[in-house]
Amino acid sequence: MEQIPPPARERLLALMRILEHSSEKTLSSAQIEIISGWSHHTIRKDISYLSGQGISIGSVSGYEKEILLPVIKKALGLDRKRKYCIVGLGRLGSAYLNLGDLDGFELTAGFDSNVNRTEILPSSVPLYPAYKMGEVIGRFNIEVALLCVPAESAQAAADKLADAGIRGIVNFAPAVLNLPPEIAVRNVYVTDELRALAVRMND
Amino acid sequence: MEQIPPPARERLLALMRILEHSSEKTLSSAQIEIISGWSHHTIRKDISYLSGQGISIGSVSGYEKEILLPVIKKALGLDRKRKYCIVGLGRLGSAYLNLGDLDGFELTAGFDSNVNRTEILPSSVPLYPAYKMGEVIGRFNIEVALLCVPAESAQAAADKLADAGIRGIVNFAPAVLNLPPEIAVRNVYVTDELRALAVRMND
Repeated sequence: MEQIPPPARERLLALMRILEHSSEKTLSSAQIEIISGWSHHTIRKDISYLSGQGISIGSVSGYEKEILLPVIKKALGLDRKRKYCIVGLGRLGSAYLNLGDLDGFELTAGFDSNVNRTEILPSSVPLYPAYKMGEVIGRFNIEVALLCVPAESAQAAADKLADAGIRGIVNFAPAVLNLPPEIAVRNVYVTDELRALAVRMND
Repeated sequence: MEQIPPPARERLLALMRILEHSSEKTLSSAQIEIISGWSHHTIRKDISYLSGQGISIGSVSGYEKEILLPVIKKALGLDRKRKYCIVGLGRLGSAYLNLGDLDGFELTAGFDSNVNRTEILPSSVPLYPAYKMGEVIGRFNIEVALLCVPAESAQAAADKLADAGIRGIVNFAPAVLNLPPEIAVRNVYVTDELRALAVRMND
């Protein structure tokens, strides 16, 4: 991983999505350029970071999806399964509880401070009271959490996750989390999504 | 808007978030560079697109938040209020119903094909059966929708939104929507968020 610079990693991740969502078996860098907006020079350069994998990735007609996808996954460290949990089992958290296992991510536990919820909610994975977060996250080696608590509880819950040794948090609460830099955070802010649409709607 | 290229627009949108979430009154391009990862050359260039607004934005010590924020909002067309609706009022949709009005976006309606839900759910805005989408979206000039239906209903609901004249969709369903290019789409895929974390956790 060290040799792939972060911006190239981000693009390779986006390229994974493009390949997964494409109905084509083979995509040329010109096609990828149209879909992604990156120059074909950038695309070729990004893909060149993968050639250390010892596979000839490109062909005359373009990049074969079935060959390129697993190589990107491996290079980005997405080829090993990781465990995730859901913190906060209100409407949002219980909606995401239904997602269950996702490609590369195994749903392992849910947590809520309200014991009624953890006892009553139907779930394919064990649900625990919030005070067990430290113990359970450590015991099962859960690496990532979806944080689905209300905004006013988000920082406290994130602090508990940090203490429990979580490595990454997807934050759905409309709150800015203050966490040690070694914990990766992705914020899903509905306002930001709406703004990103609005900016494009001005075209 | 025409004169600001799309990548600069995306960065200005991200800069808005940085400014909004910063506790500093003034940020230098060097500080913005550290937070954002963009070169200060890029930052200055992006901000230079705003100078058509006739305001001197930068100062010796940096960019003043209170001055820069409204200028970016105006340049990106985010200074006028838009109406949004929520389609699908299951757990996810009803969770987002609680968000209500957001900065620049007015929650105007909710829709669900299940009339029990639209009649029973507590809500600060009117809830309608799904067959009224065309009429209501047109009548209130609703521009954006949060699509919170299950994956298997997502394309059909998106088609109805397109027919109703919606201009943008935030898609929370784990499905790829096939829509006319004039409709802006943002996909919130939990798998993608988890992957983006995992990629950073490899550092």
